Amino acid sequence: MPEKTLSSERIYEGRIVNLRIDQTEVKGKPALREVVEHPGGVAILAFDENERVFCVKQYRYAQQRMMLELPAGKLERKEDPLETGKRELQEETGYQAEHWLFLGELIPTGAYLEEKIWMYAASGLSYVGQHLDEDEELELMRFSLEELTTMILDQTIIDAKTIAMVLKVRLMKEKGLLPF
Amino acid sequence: MPEKTLSSERIYEGRIVNLRIDQTEVKGKPALREVVEHPGGVAILAFDENERVFCVKQYRYAQQRMMLELPAGKLERKEDPLETGKRELQEETGYQAEHWLFLGELIPTGAYLEEKIWMYAASGLSYVGQHLDEDEELELMRFSLEELTTMILDQTIIDAKTIAMVLKVRLMKEKGLLPF
Repeated sequence: MPEKTLSSERIYEGRIVNLRIDQTEVKGKPALREVVEHPGGVAILAFDENERVFCVKQYRYAQQRMMLELPAGKLERKEDPLETGKRELQEETGYQAEHWLFLGELIPTGAYLEEKIWMYAASGLSYVGQHLDEDEELELMRFSLEELTTMILDQTIIDAKTIAMVLKVRLMKEKGLLPF
Repeated sequence: MPEKTLSSERIYEGRIVNLRIDQTEVKGKPALREVVEHPGGVAILAFDENERVFCVKQYRYAQQRMMLELPAGKLERKEDPLETGKRELQEETGYQAEHWLFLGELIPTGAYLEEKIWMYAASGLSYVGQHLDEDEELELMRFSLEELTTMILDQTIIDAKTIAMVLKVRLMKEKGLLPF
């Protein structure tokens, strides 16, 4: 263990995040670590029958701006990430997917944040009905991978998970690594 | 403004982050927003004379694991992001760069986090000496873009900014959009 926890104090317990302050020891020297606790989340790149990808446009209060992102949501207590993915895709887009592929984990900002995002690609969609959270308001849109790539290059898309997932899936498709 | 702030309470002021709880109003309905305040950061994809990219391997306490990432650091008070980039590149790698290209902004997790990362590519390196922060300990490594791409596909690299920047620069290179 490169860093030993000496003491730990939870400063805040909230709805989405907790905040914890740990006193640690690195190579015999004391250090203070602020840790934002978060249950983790799931993001989904879902292809429709025309190879277009579902995106959501929504106001992000912490950023004070509208953002275009792939559908995503946080894990409920002890929920399996794939179940979260299925639930969030349906809640935000109204669609269920037949095929799911795990694309790996993504760490948004590992320096002080516990959050981990499980990334999935999905296809074989059928409509079952949208069901948003009460304080959620979003515009559903669809774009081809090439349109999304253009919006990444021209800086319309600035969300980290969306850039990482679109370009990773684009690359996998190029290399024949995507089974659908 | 899609969301009106009614009241704001700072719960914690820390070394890297602050925590703020806002009461807001969305379409006439009350909402509570937890906001992790952060000054923002800079990440650098720097090419050496052999087109290899500098990476740092370090223990990320909040993730309890070693992570391979591009060099990055947070903005000091009122610092210009490009100055942060130059300072962090030198501190973490020991190199200065002659050419700098702004690649855009990156939002690690916009739902509750204020952090924004300014992304830069750099080249034309000369060695001036490494200078790490006291509680920083990292292993410096160099990889080609193709090696980094392989490590993204096999999930060795899971850091969001690193995946986003490597694949964006790779794409820009492919399309002839990188001036160096």
